Amino acid sequence: MLKTDLNSDLGESFGAYRLGLDGEILKNITSANIACGWHAGDPVVMEKTVRLAAEHGVAVGAHPGFPDLMGFGRREMKLSPEEIRAYVLYQLGALGAFARAAGTELQHVKPHGALYNIAVRDMSVAAAVCAAARAYSRELIVLAPAKSRMEEAAEEAGLRFVGEFFADRAYNPDGTLVSRSLSGAVIEDSAAVGARVMQMVREGTVTCIDGTVMPINCGSICVHGDNAHGVEITALLRRLLEDGGVKICAMRELL
Amino acid sequence: MLKTDLNSDLGESFGAYRLGLDGEILKNITSANIACGWHAGDPVVMEKTVRLAAEHGVAVGAHPGFPDLMGFGRREMKLSPEEIRAYVLYQLGALGAFARAAGTELQHVKPHGALYNIAVRDMSVAAAVCAAARAYSRELIVLAPAKSRMEEAAEEAGLRFVGEFFADRAYNPDGTLVSRSLSGAVIEDSAAVGARVMQMVREGTVTCIDGTVMPINCGSICVHGDNAHGVEITALLRRLLEDGGVKICAMRELL
Amino acid sequence: MLKTDLNSDLGESFGAYRLGLDGEILKNITSANIACGWHAGDPVVMEKTVRLAAEHGVAVGAHPGFPDLMGFGRREMKLSPEEIRAYVLYQLGALGAFARAAGTELQHVKPHGALYNIAVRDMSVAAAVCAAARAYSRELIVLAPAKSRMEEAAEEAGLRFVGEFFADRAYNPDGTLVSRSLSGAVIEDSAAVGARVMQMVREGTVTCIDGTVMPINCGSICVHGDNAHGVEITALLRRLLEDGGVKICAMRELL
Amino acid sequence: MLKTDLNSDLGESFGAYRLGLDGEILKNITSANIACGWHAGDPVVMEKTVRLAAEHGVAVGAHPGFPDLMGFGRREMKLSPEEIRAYVLYQLGALGAFARAAGTELQHVKPHGALYNIAVRDMSVAAAVCAAARAYSRELIVLAPAKSRMEEAAEEAGLRFVGEFFADRAYNPDGTLVSRSLSGAVIEDSAAVGARVMQMVREGTVTCIDGTVMPINCGSICVHGDNAHGVEITALLRRLLEDGGVKICAMRELL
Repeated sequence: MLKTDLNSDLGESFGAYRLGLDGEILKNITSANIACGWHAGDPVVMEKTVRLAAEHGVAVGAHPGFPDLMGFGRREMKLSPEEIRAYVLYQLGALGAFARAAGTELQHVKPHGALYNIAVRDMSVAAAVCAAARAYSRELIVLAPAKSRMEEAAEEAGLRFVGEFFADRAYNPDGTLVSRSLSGAVIEDSAAVGARVMQMVREGTVTCIDGTVMPINCGSICVHGDNAHGVEITALLRRLLEDGGVKICAMRELL
Repeated sequence: MLKTDLNSDLGESFGAYRLGLDGEILKNITSANIACGWHAGDPVVMEKTVRLAAEHGVAVGAHPGFPDLMGFGRREMKLSPEEIRAYVLYQLGALGAFARAAGTELQHVKPHGALYNIAVRDMSVAAAVCAAARAYSRELIVLAPAKSRMEEAAEEAGLRFVGEFFADRAYNPDGTLVSRSLSGAVIEDSAAVGARVMQMVREGTVTCIDGTVMPINCGSICVHGDNAHGVEITALLRRLLEDGGVKICAMRELL
Repeated sequence: MLKTDLNSDLGESFGAYRLGLDGEILKNITSANIACGWHAGDPVVMEKTVRLAAEHGVAVGAHPGFPDLMGFGRREMKLSPEEIRAYVLYQLGALGAFARAAGTELQHVKPHGALYNIAVRDMSVAAAVCAAARAYSRELIVLAPAKSRMEEAAEEAGLRFVGEFFADRAYNPDGTLVSRSLSGAVIEDSAAVGARVMQMVREGTVTCIDGTVMPINCGSICVHGDNAHGVEITALLRRLLEDGGVKICAMRELL
Repeated sequence: MLKTDLNSDLGESFGAYRLGLDGEILKNITSANIACGWHAGDPVVMEKTVRLAAEHGVAVGAHPGFPDLMGFGRREMKLSPEEIRAYVLYQLGALGAFARAAGTELQHVKPHGALYNIAVRDMSVAAAVCAAARAYSRELIVLAPAKSRMEEAAEEAGLRFVGEFFADRAYNPDGTLVSRSLSGAVIEDSAAVGARVMQMVREGTVTCIDGTVMPINCGSICVHGDNAHGVEITALLRRLLEDGGVKICAMRELL
């Protein structure tokens, strides 16, 4: 039977600031990437988000980011591998304590924002992230784009890896995403998004922006809970997948 | 055989800022209270400090504080019990990840600075700190002044408790410390400090500032590694205790 | 001719986090209290907010707060007067630079949240805030509740003072606000809020929660731009005042 | 008469953390670059440092940095020009308030650490820093390496510029500094440092690492107050310059 995981970023509120429709998106996803207090989130938000995810039966993962709340972790910082390893391990430990307090364990780790972008292309950063994951637990799954440096680094660290598919983003034939500054980078049409997801799940391919059909092997689909449109598309994808006989389950059940 | 633990605050450096003679004090203590990145410390410092402690065979504990790096956690903040619980659990988890990565586990928790001072006198804060400790692990030992709200709260939470003795501070007959603003509050003379420690360990008493001899039951003695004088006194205390036939061991070996 | 100022807190967004309907509320107020990056706001937000206020002809003031972004400056911190003076002066300077860059000057200062609440009742804190204001500029107006420690402190510092009226809050006969934990503390009914404002402006009195009619002398009315209801009430108050022949103008035009 | 300014970074302490021999170095310099609370410094430290500089008759300048206290502003961050402009203006305003409170005005601005390094080579960053300086005051002097993008940007912004000479660093023939990772990058010998300074001041040249004699035109010499060796060399340089008939004065007296 075909299976897939649906993952989304959660717990991005901070103090008095609210962000994301966490309660809505949790109804339709199977894995939550939860901010760890560095680029977003705070301990009270983390505790609530972990508990809410657990109540919905959604698997909990860490979404560590750069120490840059003002930039929401989206601005590149040049850190040493030693710093990245320690920063990620710190965040894993902090979120992991809330997971354990809620009677669960961290399932996976997916770096956030600029840290994600750098880890995808830079082996020393990818290795530092995976070293932190490995130091935290050899059971942790690494979630990142297939064929990226992160996949290599996870393998070298002896960690399980799940690739993620960006349902609403156009791909270049080299497997990278089309830059948001180019037209056609984001696929707005829900039906088109649905069709791409079904193609990826059933055939293991994606049709690139230049028409090339590229093999792609992703166990998880990244969806968005920070706006109503994202929540809506997610509900639609879920129905489409289930109607198509695809089982939606947390990534730990895929491996 | 008489036994005691020697504890000290460590890992208080931050980024380019150095604080404390950690390498020196580790030679003579048995339990380290390590800052968790909120009032002092950062992930790189935490990782190094945990590893250094482990190398010296010193047990590792968490020293969580208020989110106030600018005030070194020494300024009172009025937080809700829910906030305190979440903040302490966050810090325990973060430090715990480094402990596990170094092949050990957190032995104890001792709140820092203003959080310590409030937890000693305010039951709702003490209960919040202990709830966090209990959520982290039922094996965690709570370290704080004997007969304080922290001892009560630890007991209610079902956690083991160790009282700490301030070797160089004068006591009031009600068990509180004489305020630093009063003369005689700090005992500078090394011989006097040594005598007080031996009296506490052997007879279970302390002579208060008014001459009263008060029963006191402390398994651990708090020493200071942030200046050369503190390091020196600690070495002296250690010799004195060992010469007097007292075994120096981590607090988990006391219980 | 009767005159009044309408003031509101603005610029409370931070990084990716949006807060407040600044563009809406600016249409109806005459003085903006702008966050300075400590409890809310960041330099990019400050620059935009100052420019937007200037474009609307709204006078710009500083809204300094505690160094507690996670608590939105609403949690009490025990700081020394020296610390408070330096923290407020820092924030005044930072916001003042954006004011000058936009071709204007800071008109006033109003402390935020917990700093406001403490300054209202504690003379040493009030004096520290006013010392910072005086060090920044002897032209700065202090905005706070009439008859509070802030009024005394402003007078002692040789600064002009404007009292502010809370249109939607019930008063105790001693001039303090009824605690939000008590029923009747917040007046939801728009017509009642309007009537209270007209009574204060025309007769210089407020009817307290126990029915007492208390004299009150406020040059400015505090309104809320953080939700649609507040924006609506503000528009209503403005019409009511103008229809009643009251001139709405920035507080510097009152003195 | 030959003249030169001696500049040094000051006010780098933070909260409980002490850094730099400010009281010592102030005896021999003429311009102080003071940290503004982002990469180092806090308002209490800023206030004390400005006052101390004023007491020593040392001109006060701003040393703005990245929002990265944990990295001491030494790690590159990819910020937009709009962000850099706002961040620098914020810091200038904050420090400027303390300067004015101490009866003086900011003389100059010199970016710190990674911001300095990027501004030297990247015109959009240099322009953003100079736009902030210009928005703060058209009287502000920009201090940076001669012939760098900062000199160009200052000129385009209509601001005065002073080049700074690194007395103890080897130069490449293209005017850049030899990387610290190469041998010979730092000149440890005091006599050699003194000779280089005299050559630069008298002949307007520096002998590069490859022996080339390069023209260099610097009004200010950068010295170090963060260690005893730097303080010593500075005293020696000052004597050497004065004995050689060179007047030591703040950079505003050079122009």
